[in-house]
Amino acid sequence: MRVIRSVKTMQRLVAKARRAGKRVGFVPTMGALHEGHASLLRRCRRENDIVVLSIFVNPKQFGLKEDFAKYPRRERDDKKLAKREKVDIIFVPSVKEMYPEGYLTYIEVEKITKVLCGKSRPGHFRGVTTVVGKLLNIVMPDALYLGQKDAQQAAVLAWMVRDLNFPVSVRICSTVRETGGLAMSSRNEYLTADQRREAAVLYRSLKEARQSVIAGNHSVAATIGKMRSRIRRESSGRIDYIECVAADTLAPLKRIQGKIIIALAVWFGKTRLIDNIIVRA
Amino acid sequence: MRVIRSVKTMQRLVAKARRAGKRVGFVPTMGALHEGHASLLRRCRRENDIVVLSIFVNPKQFGLKEDFAKYPRRERDDKKLAKREKVDIIFVPSVKEMYPEGYLTYIEVEKITKVLCGKSRPGHFRGVTTVVGKLLNIVMPDALYLGQKDAQQAAVLAWMVRDLNFPVSVRICSTVRETGGLAMSSRNEYLTADQRREAAVLYRSLKEARQSVIAGNHSVAATIGKMRSRIRRESSGRIDYIECVAADTLAPLKRIQGKIIIALAVWFGKTRLIDNIIVRA
Repeated sequence: MRVIRSVKTMQRLVAKARRAGKRVGFVPTMGALHEGHASLLRRCRRENDIVVLSIFVNPKQFGLKEDFAKYPRRERDDKKLAKREKVDIIFVPSVKEMYPEGYLTYIEVEKITKVLCGKSRPGHFRGVTTVVGKLLNIVMPDALYLGQKDAQQAAVLAWMVRDLNFPVSVRICSTVRETGGLAMSSRNEYLTADQRREAAVLYRSLKEARQSVIAGNHSVAATIGKMRSRIRRESSGRIDYIECVAADTLAPLKRIQGKIIIALAVWFGKTRLIDNIIVRA
Repeated sequence: MRVIRSVKTMQRLVAKARRAGKRVGFVPTMGALHEGHASLLRRCRRENDIVVLSIFVNPKQFGLKEDFAKYPRRERDDKKLAKREKVDIIFVPSVKEMYPEGYLTYIEVEKITKVLCGKSRPGHFRGVTTVVGKLLNIVMPDALYLGQKDAQQAAVLAWMVRDLNFPVSVRICSTVRETGGLAMSSRNEYLTADQRREAAVLYRSLKEARQSVIAGNHSVAATIGKMRSRIRRESSGRIDYIECVAADTLAPLKRIQGKIIIALAVWFGKTRLIDNIIVRA
């Protein structure tokens, strides 16, 4: 397993591999790896000759009052997990390597970045699309692996890849959950034991909503209303949003129809958790 | 010489060529090819195994009141010139192929796009960087050839390539001029015979400015002042801007120092012409 910190070296390495006819798979992360990441790496390993993992806590996707400084960083543990999952190359650039002095260029996806998390985190998705655009040019992968847990991020990046014609196929992988149902996230470790127990209500409320849609209830207001009461009743979580949107365009829905995503963001103390479920109605 | 209209076909073709170890050079244009383009194609031919020329009048880089509709289009003549210059592949996509329904993604370079032409053409460079970013992902060239005539465009694109880590080297080629000195441009054909004769004053004023800088005059105000008077005295041109900026960052200068660009934009009737000269002081 090689650890690469320079853009140029990474590009040279991958260009060589591609000329040799190797298929390159890529899992971009911010580190603090957990079983969710591991599941992306496993699928990437199965489907490619070379597995590249990037670890970069991207300052441009954090708001001024967000948790950039305290976001967990533990390169040593991450390397162990990467080795276990048979990663070939870890790309770990510094902030200066990614954003050298005089940096001026941004990739922005309009409209679908202004809903859901985009409302409470202005500028967040511009940071995400910019860094992933850069990483695609650096790693030049055949396939890009993203987690469904960050549903809007996955949709926005798929849109960017399509619009800008990046020669890569996007693979979205199911959310991995803790035993209680809480979606795996590097931010879960901010939670107290009580909050962690309480936060399991998020997935319960999503499953209940899905059941109710499958049973024939197609009202967005009623679905969201029920989720709201349940979360309030069973936890101390403060709801940022709960929404039903079209799965591909993230357009808000009046009635539940077609392939949709029910998505939510809820604060537990100072920690903002997100989760979602896909429903076909 | 192959003419390709589909993104997918273009990507497949180039991926194959690159796997075979071929070096790909790329000249992006809006067609209406002239000797300026021919000089880019010749250098591209000398330095690469495969020469790709794109012809695409990009609606996103024209303002609402600009000349998108009347911009000259003549695919047949362009193909003749391309054949003469031994182009291997012409990529000629439709607007719908480049911007399919629901298109949402833009690449933007900040700051250096707000000066010079960026001031009079808001949104113009966002259109340029977006389309060239797409074309780089579609053509995947080793080298990109741009004309120095569009000095700001070349600087902005070089900045984008650097910032977003596109794996391509940018080659900027000297301006080609008509006998009188007027810089070659597809827009020159909008000019009447009188305007064309008058417009030669632009290059005369740039050369005079360079002479004066070389002779030791490092005052920006005096340099621009002299150019202004000359253009007013010797033509009917209406000056949009004349500026002295740093060659790499396009930062406006108080005193002429280092490698600089003297750049201008002047209207002749309804036609806006640009030109520039590089000076080392």
